[in-house]
Amino acid sequence: MTNDNLKNILNAVKDGSMDVDQGMEKLRDLPYQDIGHTKIDHHRSLRNGFPEVIYGAGKTPQQVGDIFEHMCGRNNVLATRVSPETAEHVTARFPHVEYNETANTLTCKNKKIEYNSGTVGIITAGTSDLDVAEEALVTCDMLGSRATIISDIGVAGIHRMLDRIDEIRKFSVLIVIAGMEGALSSVIGGLVEQPIIAVPTSVGYGANFSGLSALLGMLTSCASGVTVVNIDNGFGAACAACKINKAIDR
Amino acid sequence: MTNDNLKNILNAVKDGSMDVDQGMEKLRDLPYQDIGHTKIDHHRSLRNGFPEVIYGAGKTPQQVGDIFEHMCGRNNVLATRVSPETAEHVTARFPHVEYNETANTLTCKNKKIEYNSGTVGIITAGTSDLDVAEEALVTCDMLGSRATIISDIGVAGIHRMLDRIDEIRKFSVLIVIAGMEGALSSVIGGLVEQPIIAVPTSVGYGANFSGLSALLGMLTSCASGVTVVNIDNGFGAACAACKINKAIDR
Amino acid sequence: MTNDNLKNILNAVKDGSMDVDQGMEKLRDLPYQDIGHTKIDHHRSLRNGFPEVIYGAGKTPQQVGDIFEHMCGRNNVLATRVSPETAEHVTARFPHVEYNETANTLTCKNKKIEYNSGTVGIITAGTSDLDVAEEALVTCDMLGSRATIISDIGVAGIHRMLDRIDEIRKFSVLIVIAGMEGALSSVIGGLVEQPIIAVPTSVGYGANFSGLSALLGMLTSCASGVTVVNIDNGFGAACAACKINKAIDR
Amino acid sequence: MTNDNLKNILNAVKDGSMDVDQGMEKLRDLPYQDIGHTKIDHHRSLRNGFPEVIYGAGKTPQQVGDIFEHMCGRNNVLATRVSPETAEHVTARFPHVEYNETANTLTCKNKKIEYNSGTVGIITAGTSDLDVAEEALVTCDMLGSRATIISDIGVAGIHRMLDRIDEIRKFSVLIVIAGMEGALSSVIGGLVEQPIIAVPTSVGYGANFSGLSALLGMLTSCASGVTVVNIDNGFGAACAACKINKAIDR
Amino acid sequence: MTNDNLKNILNAVKDGSMDVDQGMEKLRDLPYQDIGHTKIDHHRSLRNGFPEVIYGAGKTPQQVGDIFEHMCGRNNVLATRVSPETAEHVTARFPHVEYNETANTLTCKNKKIEYNSGTVGIITAGTSDLDVAEEALVTCDMLGSRATIISDIGVAGIHRMLDRIDEIRKFSVLIVIAGMEGALSSVIGGLVEQPIIAVPTSVGYGANFSGLSALLGMLTSCASGVTVVNIDNGFGAACAACKINKAIDR
Amino acid sequence: MTNDNLKNILNAVKDGSMDVDQGMEKLRDLPYQDIGHTKIDHHRSLRNGFPEVIYGAGKTPQQVGDIFEHMCGRNNVLATRVSPETAEHVTARFPHVEYNETANTLTCKNKKIEYNSGTVGIITAGTSDLDVAEEALVTCDMLGSRATIISDIGVAGIHRMLDRIDEIRKFSVLIVIAGMEGALSSVIGGLVEQPIIAVPTSVGYGANFSGLSALLGMLTSCASGVTVVNIDNGFGAACAACKINKAIDR
Amino acid sequence: MTNDNLKNILNAVKDGSMDVDQGMEKLRDLPYQDIGHTKIDHHRSLRNGFPEVIYGAGKTPQQVGDIFEHMCGRNNVLATRVSPETAEHVTARFPHVEYNETANTLTCKNKKIEYNSGTVGIITAGTSDLDVAEEALVTCDMLGSRATIISDIGVAGIHRMLDRIDEIRKFSVLIVIAGMEGALSSVIGGLVEQPIIAVPTSVGYGANFSGLSALLGMLTSCASGVTVVNIDNGFGAACAACKINKAIDR
Amino acid sequence: MTNDNLKNILNAVKDGSMDVDQGMEKLRDLPYQDIGHTKIDHHRSLRNGFPEVIYGAGKTPQQVGDIFEHMCGRNNVLATRVSPETAEHVTARFPHVEYNETANTLTCKNKKIEYNSGTVGIITAGTSDLDVAEEALVTCDMLGSRATIISDIGVAGIHRMLDRIDEIRKFSVLIVIAGMEGALSSVIGGLVEQPIIAVPTSVGYGANFSGLSALLGMLTSCASGVTVVNIDNGFGAACAACKINKAIDR
Repeated sequence: MTNDNLKNILNAVKDGSMDVDQGMEKLRDLPYQDIGHTKIDHHRSLRNGFPEVIYGAGKTPQQVGDIFEHMCGRNNVLATRVSPETAEHVTARFPHVEYNETANTLTCKNKKIEYNSGTVGIITAGTSDLDVAEEALVTCDMLGSRATIISDIGVAGIHRMLDRIDEIRKFSVLIVIAGMEGALSSVIGGLVEQPIIAVPTSVGYGANFSGLSALLGMLTSCASGVTVVNIDNGFGAACAACKINKAIDR
Repeated sequence: MTNDNLKNILNAVKDGSMDVDQGMEKLRDLPYQDIGHTKIDHHRSLRNGFPEVIYGAGKTPQQVGDIFEHMCGRNNVLATRVSPETAEHVTARFPHVEYNETANTLTCKNKKIEYNSGTVGIITAGTSDLDVAEEALVTCDMLGSRATIISDIGVAGIHRMLDRIDEIRKFSVLIVIAGMEGALSSVIGGLVEQPIIAVPTSVGYGANFSGLSALLGMLTSCASGVTVVNIDNGFGAACAACKINKAIDR
Repeated sequence: MTNDNLKNILNAVKDGSMDVDQGMEKLRDLPYQDIGHTKIDHHRSLRNGFPEVIYGAGKTPQQVGDIFEHMCGRNNVLATRVSPETAEHVTARFPHVEYNETANTLTCKNKKIEYNSGTVGIITAGTSDLDVAEEALVTCDMLGSRATIISDIGVAGIHRMLDRIDEIRKFSVLIVIAGMEGALSSVIGGLVEQPIIAVPTSVGYGANFSGLSALLGMLTSCASGVTVVNIDNGFGAACAACKINKAIDR
Repeated sequence: MTNDNLKNILNAVKDGSMDVDQGMEKLRDLPYQDIGHTKIDHHRSLRNGFPEVIYGAGKTPQQVGDIFEHMCGRNNVLATRVSPETAEHVTARFPHVEYNETANTLTCKNKKIEYNSGTVGIITAGTSDLDVAEEALVTCDMLGSRATIISDIGVAGIHRMLDRIDEIRKFSVLIVIAGMEGALSSVIGGLVEQPIIAVPTSVGYGANFSGLSALLGMLTSCASGVTVVNIDNGFGAACAACKINKAIDR
Repeated sequence: MTNDNLKNILNAVKDGSMDVDQGMEKLRDLPYQDIGHTKIDHHRSLRNGFPEVIYGAGKTPQQVGDIFEHMCGRNNVLATRVSPETAEHVTARFPHVEYNETANTLTCKNKKIEYNSGTVGIITAGTSDLDVAEEALVTCDMLGSRATIISDIGVAGIHRMLDRIDEIRKFSVLIVIAGMEGALSSVIGGLVEQPIIAVPTSVGYGANFSGLSALLGMLTSCASGVTVVNIDNGFGAACAACKINKAIDR
Repeated sequence: MTNDNLKNILNAVKDGSMDVDQGMEKLRDLPYQDIGHTKIDHHRSLRNGFPEVIYGAGKTPQQVGDIFEHMCGRNNVLATRVSPETAEHVTARFPHVEYNETANTLTCKNKKIEYNSGTVGIITAGTSDLDVAEEALVTCDMLGSRATIISDIGVAGIHRMLDRIDEIRKFSVLIVIAGMEGALSSVIGGLVEQPIIAVPTSVGYGANFSGLSALLGMLTSCASGVTVVNIDNGFGAACAACKINKAIDR
Repeated sequence: MTNDNLKNILNAVKDGSMDVDQGMEKLRDLPYQDIGHTKIDHHRSLRNGFPEVIYGAGKTPQQVGDIFEHMCGRNNVLATRVSPETAEHVTARFPHVEYNETANTLTCKNKKIEYNSGTVGIITAGTSDLDVAEEALVTCDMLGSRATIISDIGVAGIHRMLDRIDEIRKFSVLIVIAGMEGALSSVIGGLVEQPIIAVPTSVGYGANFSGLSALLGMLTSCASGVTVVNIDNGFGAACAACKINKAIDR
Repeated sequence: MTNDNLKNILNAVKDGSMDVDQGMEKLRDLPYQDIGHTKIDHHRSLRNGFPEVIYGAGKTPQQVGDIFEHMCGRNNVLATRVSPETAEHVTARFPHVEYNETANTLTCKNKKIEYNSGTVGIITAGTSDLDVAEEALVTCDMLGSRATIISDIGVAGIHRMLDRIDEIRKFSVLIVIAGMEGALSSVIGGLVEQPIIAVPTSVGYGANFSGLSALLGMLTSCASGVTVVNIDNGFGAACAACKINKAIDR
């Protein structure tokens, strides 16, 4: 569409139906496409490799349902941070949409997912981090990376983690999810070669300050090369992991 | 002195030189001693087992020197957070006072230190934490606990720490000193039985926010039973460790 | 189990059924035990003296119930931060599990608790701190330390505290619990010889900022040797206190 | 002047040289005086009982000197937060101006101070709080309240404070100055009847966060009726204390 | 009681039934009274002039009711931060207890209040600050100061405040209550001579951060001598105001 | 009224029924109007061009209804942050009052709005920012500026914004509304000449910290001349925009 | 240049020397100009009406000098946050460049400034805010708005401000600069009709927290329609004011 | 070494010179190597692919020099955050060590660097971010990734960035460095497919709060899949980028 649009302008200039000055005006802030009142960015997948994802928080069930109506026909769709009410509304309207109640996601698979060759290891410090891990798992799947969760191997029982280290070393990318002091990413970061994306969670209380302790801990990690995403952002970590896996296949 | 003071009042009441009402007035907020304009609390060592320690920060060399003059005669004295200028002034005035330039301490040993039976393991994540560790070491010594520093075994190279774990398990109390994310106390806390006192340090930059990341990390440690003192407070950690060692000998 | 596991490997190497290189591979990150999908760390009690405790917050009643099912047979179990719904579910499933609604704990005592010789004084500034104190009390009991609560002796009425000071001086370890400005730990810290673990609570409003005022106050205490745990963390304070009591008996 | 100004307008209206509409326009935002380009508010002392005080921080020696030149003729003048450079410049220009290097103040006494009947007790937790106490002392004196400093009676040695409590109870107003956890105001607040103004100081390190710990501690004090001023604001506390003493004499 | 207690000890020493050493031991931390398991501090009113006030937040209706049962017989009682449920419970049990639903207070007047000669002006910036103002009003009344509320004269319409300034100048003490930027205390502080106690409120949203903006604004007020209490703390402001009024009458 | 009031005083002085001294007293803090117990500031519209707006948060339905009763007769009225309960109450009492449930506003139009010549472009980064945008839209309308919302053109799909840039350049003032990192105002600020008012929203989670990330981002914008209002403050942004449009027409 | 660039591409397409596909590729992210290694954005003045301004902080004297060398020939140039060392270096190299040591600016006027019809009133609360005010003044001048500073009329002496209110009402835009609690913008905001841009300054200490108190105060102002820029950002406020003045002339 | 160590133990068990129980004891916390008193972790490069890097901040010139002495013989060495004093000391001792004064690094290349096939694009918003970019550049080089800096293309002139977008799309990994609001990573994140590592810098003032604004902005980026490292941490970003490039080649 953008391409057509651009081609039309250039052709109009070429055949003289649009003069150069008009063309200049037209092209001043281009080449971008007018996709109507909904502004759904089908174009994005061309640019950065992912479909537009619906962020469900702060949207009404009706709004989310409407967006699914526009998007579901042509593409795979992922909605995150979906409330049970929204899930009920959308799955009633579109029976083939699947709801994952741990991950709080809705997924609609219209096209077969083409998996890349990389793998993602999703590691959690505690069982309370599992909803974030599930969000990452569902997202990896929708974006084409095979992922596995290894849960409850936090540093207070370091042997639990060390016991799995061979397995952990086999993934191409790691997502490390931890609340409280978030130390797991530092310890794993010192033991493996792969890229690590750390996700601080809001698991904890008091001086955890809604995830601040884990966030600051991961940002100041003594293990070099650990990168961090927003608190509880399993989705974002999965996006980053999948970008790396795509880079591997490129 | 306080005791004498009290005894005098009680004797005066007993022998009738002070009547009960006068005694009541006298005793209303007692029994505490007036030790004159300097208010040096020699009494404290009777109550909580430690001499009054001089906190050198924010005091002039002259002021610190004067306090040494009053205290040095009768007791062992420890000054912390001493600037080089203060150290020079005090050691010039009192040649037997020793300056430790890593720990930033001045010590004056008038009496033989009676060591308790416990030991303190002072463990640091990095070499940049050594000044805090030295402050703890000097303090332990002055308070009567034998202490040893094991440095530079942070979690980014977890094997360095695991390799020393037998040695670490032999101390009666542990002080764990770490900056950045402060994860070392969580990992050790999951591996040993002893009491652990964690000291966050201001080592780091950016999201470390002058020690906040390590402080919050240690407070929210997933390892149960780790306690925390103020940022860079090697002295306070040593006091706590020595109180535990005293409790062991009691 | 870990021991058996290790022994098997070593025996296999000894009798030649496993060659040295295979053994090396096997032992690279060992000796830790694979305890299956639940990853319940029965081993931890050997290492740091405590059973794994269930942190109830953020877990469903069903999840907590399932963990009880796996752990209750062989050991004493403690669950903290238990909601009334979880308590109802678990006590219905396991009638011998006890619910303490002030402490928000569930306890399951399968084995006679062997008490150590130390005692823990749990001191609160106000009656609003009692739930944290109860959590500490239940935890001390489960971990083998006899504990007593002395409540409502905050510094605004300093005589209330001073009046109990003899009693306070008889415990081997003190837990001091206070909200608002958290000053009680400083005052007691100046009067006694024992180790003190301070627990800031979120009691208060406005500039209390959910416990921040008490937390910072306790960390910067002018009384040397006071250590601090997370806001409202009665459980953690009890763990630390019991570690000290264990050190005393060692 | 303001009064003259106002009278002129009203007289002009009365005698018809200014009509009512002109008078209305003139008076719309009045009655306030135009005191020229310097805008020194000599008028304020009429309204709230204090001369304008020079806040020396962020002003050049020359600027402070110039302000003294305009104000010194007619009134007593107080400058706070004066740097040594400024002090040197001003005392060189105006030899009768006095510099207090602990308080960092400059004072110029042109008129005999009329003292009110009240007294101010300025109490500090530690000797490091003395500069703030001195600023309060000088300010009290300039504003007409007799004040006395009682220093170094912090709560870590509660007996030191209790021993002075009779003396403390004799002042009409108390200023309590403390850094670290700022607990002194809570303890004294529970023991005396007088108004207490608490001054948190930036004395401390780490979790003190430049006075934040003492500030929050004093604001959340469990002792009712303690009021607080800005960190290190000995001047402001003295102003408040003197306002109370003026109210007593009114 | 404390007095009797003290007298007994002194008499026992005098008549020899207790020797001096026993007396010393007895008096070490005295003279304070054991008032049984409830630790209600009837003694406090002797020391700082106020009855113990019940802080209702975080207490169950039953608990508040029980405290009323012990206290109501002999004294006037004030409970603050009372929930509607607690109010219903207590007024059902004690019909003469009055509930003020704006102030969230319960009051029980057993003795005629003796008013001091001072007055308190309680000034609010907006109508949303009225609950804090009412809490201050009820508290002033119970503590013996006559108080009046002047509401909704915030600085966005400065003329509303200026119009009331004569009235404002007639109180002996002022309480200024404001949320948002809290500027009202600065403006009034520049216009009047009386002591001003500023109360920041949590009225506002966003960058108000639950009262932080008003709190910081009042603490850094450019008007000298304004003192501040905790966010929303109408009770504390009233205590401070009444202490000043008591000082005036002393 | 104020004018009458003022005129009366001046006339009284002129005709001698009030002497100059009395007039002076009267005028000391004037000329401001006593508008009775409600203190509704009808006068403000004369001074700054806007009617008093009702801030609905923290007011009961009854209170908001009463204010409408006093104001609705003579002026256009706008209430913001109105709860559904308040909306129901007020629209039941005053059927001509309109409720906008996205904007959470009530409006009462008694007089024809006179629109100024300027226009306001209200631009949002995401659809979740729409309630803030609607509040701005309704406010602009009531204050006399025609406004249009352009939504969902955040920087993650920069072409969506660039595509609308011609349209955006045609407004006289821009309001840019964004949560998360708030980058939209920086990008637009670099592309257009008009005044831009940025509104950070609390849309986001984790490190968004209730709008803090967008607030700080907008304040530190690398695009010069972007100004900022409080988090979620669509109303305030609209007021500022309309003041600019009034300045254009002046 | 950009225009030429664009025209070249379009002409090449028109005359067939570039085919449509090549043109599409060329234009994909256009039309923006390649201005070489310095990337000085001469183009920006076309888009948003201002020249690129040099932000001097963090640049070496040499770097700032080099930028002046490239820019000074064709345009008026403004550098802000210039250190004395940088000023010395640049004025030595380019004698016609002017240094304003209060504003910390360097200006180079190659072209006659065309002033717009609007005016900017720059109002400060205290004399310590003058450097920020001067930065705003210089910036206004360079951007074509005539500006005047009215200083030292903070709210602690509200009459000083009220006395100037007529004068203040005559500007087309106001910049209000204040530190401490930043209340001046609220008070002026309630009195005038014009757009107000508030600048919080870092003037103050303690709870000012480097300008945070003024920043939060201004953002939560009870006066509607006040907008805020970054702490100490006189430059940004002037940019915003000049954009408004340009809008007035458009 | 570790391998030898392990092999020795296993061989000793095999040949019976060490019995199984002794072997078990030996292996309890193994297999980790004792590398002597310096604890330099040569082993780490085997585990995570990087040599130990010297963090120069907080170390004396002598200390850094000594570490170089131990490490320089066998490996390539990188020291970051090196002060000019340290640089002078080390380069005097080891003339082949190179100092980069923009990056603040020391490098010692003993072995030819083997570059991987990936490339790193290091993009900065402003010229003030160049030191962070240089640190990243040097680090990439030492770790074997070819990197290029594209500077000064911040979002306030979005066309500067868009103009380089083709070039940017050709790198395998991107590092985006920005201070102030940190918006550049969001905008680029929406335009490209590659992994992006965002580095917030402390460039800015006021509400930048030493990099907090950029940090929060990048963490809450509306562009999915952007990961973040610590403020000013060019080194960490380069490590993460190189890990990705290694994953590509694996």
